[in-house]
Amino acid sequence: MLPTALDKLSALLSRLPGVGDRSANRLAVFILSQDQEYAQGLGDTLQELHERVSFCQECHMLCEGTLCDVCRDPTRDQETVCVVQSVVDLMAFERTGAYNGLYHVMHGVLAPLKGIGPGHLKLDNLELRLDSLGAKEVILATNTDVEGEATALYLARRLERMDVETTRLATGLPMGGELEYIDQNTLTRALSGRQGLSLRSED
Amino acid sequence: MLPTALDKLSALLSRLPGVGDRSANRLAVFILSQDQEYAQGLGDTLQELHERVSFCQECHMLCEGTLCDVCRDPTRDQETVCVVQSVVDLMAFERTGAYNGLYHVMHGVLAPLKGIGPGHLKLDNLELRLDSLGAKEVILATNTDVEGEATALYLARRLERMDVETTRLATGLPMGGELEYIDQNTLTRALSGRQGLSLRSED
Repeated sequence: MLPTALDKLSALLSRLPGVGDRSANRLAVFILSQDQEYAQGLGDTLQELHERVSFCQECHMLCEGTLCDVCRDPTRDQETVCVVQSVVDLMAFERTGAYNGLYHVMHGVLAPLKGIGPGHLKLDNLELRLDSLGAKEVILATNTDVEGEATALYLARRLERMDVETTRLATGLPMGGELEYIDQNTLTRALSGRQGLSLRSED
Repeated sequence: MLPTALDKLSALLSRLPGVGDRSANRLAVFILSQDQEYAQGLGDTLQELHERVSFCQECHMLCEGTLCDVCRDPTRDQETVCVVQSVVDLMAFERTGAYNGLYHVMHGVLAPLKGIGPGHLKLDNLELRLDSLGAKEVILATNTDVEGEATALYLARRLERMDVETTRLATGLPMGGELEYIDQNTLTRALSGRQGLSLRSED
């Protein structure tokens, strides 16, 4: 139905995550309905993308150059390293503004059924890096699904012989969540991880 | 947080309908994680998009050249013209395979509050076209929201003095819909539009 050029664009867009055939059509028609500058700008950016963007040699975050902003920043706490699955997870932490340590982006999780082993993750320089940083704590911030949990366990075992503490993010009720609607697993974890309630503010 | 090139890509992607800031980030990172050929191909297609695609001189559908496939097809019923709001609506009709007439794509609906009047829609050649086709029926296939209904009414009045019948798509229960969950307006329309049930197949 669509002109070849639009059809081709639509087919490429439908490869994006969460974009089906129909939304790809809709997006392609939308792009065409905008100024020509928009399509051109998007085209230019895409063409130079791979040349301009590289991985940080230390933490494997995306960056321009050899080191990312976080690794270049001397004010960040060099003794805490947060291991994350992906770039967007790192960005989620940065948005909180509550974390001042370093990161290590694995770009994936262990998934034996998909044939993804430790060799497929960016873990080669992990021990060396923790050593040279003199890291004291490694936060294993993988997802709380089966693969994420298994990867955290793998990393905890791998780092056992090193002189670092390995930690996991707390599991429990989400803020603003209603107890009635929380799933059984989360509630069980929240119960076993319950903490003392201090009525006095810390002096 | 992201490298400039990726940030720029993300900002452009967030202008797409249904794509927020976070999904734009996710899409940008996804594109980078694919082969370089993907980003390049998408870039090439976007850059030549506006040059390659034009509007059909008759029905204003997107096409390459001066006339679209439907308008060029002599087997289509030249006496029925279906007026639609957008290219994707036309494609929805074509997917049904149940319509063999021609189309007229307005590329919008009347929206006085947004300052969109008849002059902003592709309607200039409508009467001339209906005339030269010798059209007998015009299906006003706009959406059933306020703006769509108003536009259909406007067109019906505008075409009143011409020798064509104007029709609207049937309003009623969707196939597979459960009566209990149908909204009041739709149910009222379905009731007033009820039809005789023929138990005998047509001879």
